[in-house]
Amino acid sequence: MKKKNKKVNAGILIIGNEILSGRTQDKNVAFISNWLNLKCGISVLEVRIVQDTEKIIIKNILELSKKFNYVFTTGGIGPTHDDITAKSISKAFNVRYEYHKEAFNILENYYGKSKFNDGRKKMAKMPRGSRLIYNPSSAAPGFITKNVISLPGVPSILNSMIENCKRYLIKGLKVHSKTLNVFTVESNISKELGLLQKRFKKNVDIGSYPFFRLGKIGVSIVSRSSSKIELEKVSKDLYKLIKKKGVKILSI
Amino acid sequence: MKKKNKKVNAGILIIGNEILSGRTQDKNVAFISNWLNLKCGISVLEVRIVQDTEKIIIKNILELSKKFNYVFTTGGIGPTHDDITAKSISKAFNVRYEYHKEAFNILENYYGKSKFNDGRKKMAKMPRGSRLIYNPSSAAPGFITKNVISLPGVPSILNSMIENCKRYLIKGLKVHSKTLNVFTVESNISKELGLLQKRFKKNVDIGSYPFFRLGKIGVSIVSRSSSKIELEKVSKDLYKLIKKKGVKILSI
Repeated sequence: MKKKNKKVNAGILIIGNEILSGRTQDKNVAFISNWLNLKCGISVLEVRIVQDTEKIIIKNILELSKKFNYVFTTGGIGPTHDDITAKSISKAFNVRYEYHKEAFNILENYYGKSKFNDGRKKMAKMPRGSRLIYNPSSAAPGFITKNVISLPGVPSILNSMIENCKRYLIKGLKVHSKTLNVFTVESNISKELGLLQKRFKKNVDIGSYPFFRLGKIGVSIVSRSSSKIELEKVSKDLYKLIKKKGVKILSI
Repeated sequence: MKKKNKKVNAGILIIGNEILSGRTQDKNVAFISNWLNLKCGISVLEVRIVQDTEKIIIKNILELSKKFNYVFTTGGIGPTHDDITAKSISKAFNVRYEYHKEAFNILENYYGKSKFNDGRKKMAKMPRGSRLIYNPSSAAPGFITKNVISLPGVPSILNSMIENCKRYLIKGLKVHSKTLNVFTVESNISKELGLLQKRFKKNVDIGSYPFFRLGKIGVSIVSRSSSKIELEKVSKDLYKLIKKKGVKILSI
């Protein structure tokens, strides 16, 4: 089942008014993206952050699940009234929203029969046919429905669950990257970088990102490719180009 | 021109492979959202993070600019080959991509004629008819084209420019919020919160967000409304409800 010779991609759907309002700083995009690329060779190609509104979630689930091999959702799978991810996914795929037996048992065991109230039971309700993603932190499982993987919004819990997603994912080609940090301004090397990118446009993406460090302005030049050989070639040419320009290299 | 009695909304389009790949942690969403709400009464209703690809940027600019009163873009307005935001917006709106005279003069003055190379000149190219957003940090201006406001991706520069967007924006109703932090688990109060939300479903949004502090688990209950009076009512009822449950209040 696990092929390593093709490109596999994903989208991320962040569900939560608290991220949109700016109250909470999202940390899940960077974490999921890095993990997917490093551990599974899957590239995240789009992220959307949307409101806790059923209609909006349904529309985005349908769009993203058609567009990408996988969709990761974060948020909205807890016990409160604003947690509507599972119900919305059920409606999106037109399957029943019902108790998942194993999830129910896991939660009943975790809380104990007497403390297993309606709010807690809600966390066992999922789209019919979902498979579980176990949660070593706080019991309530995530789930995968078709190609949509639903995880909680709290970063520490999400992080503890991510390895349990692996079994459901087809692996793709890993994207390797090399970073060259130099002390200069972008506009001093933009022409040369553009020409280099043109020469390697097929296999390598070259990005240029300004930074401020030690009171000086610098640029991180990041080359990304699924081919280590091409990446090595770009790195050599980039090094020569920077040397020729007389630009100081901070780190490779 | 400035009405304060209606809802005004915005979308944010983050343009940049470095955010999608997880290499860089986005900080602009939270900053822009908070500023828009606090200073302009504008609510951000959707965020998208997309690749540095012309076709994709065009599609998203067109979709979001139709959907919301304003669209803020971040990233892709620098001097390098991967900076294609201005060109893509020109194509999206079918207007010429050309030198903006004032921007050209600002940049020529800043760098000096002899050092004003092609990369730097590129930062003066914009969709025809754009108006400038001045940049007190590094000269290169942002711009507004129809209802799309384009800012740089580097947070410190973006932050220094945001006040200069204000003159172009129609103000809306500010959303006020109140947060009650309590030491309990969500599932202990989920039923009561749900009932409270039902009673105030017209004017107040109640969100519930778990946190971990001082080795204990807690919940931040955030109520948001454009009506201060309704917010005050919810707060009082919430306080009573929490007291009745015997839950310890950490802070209001």
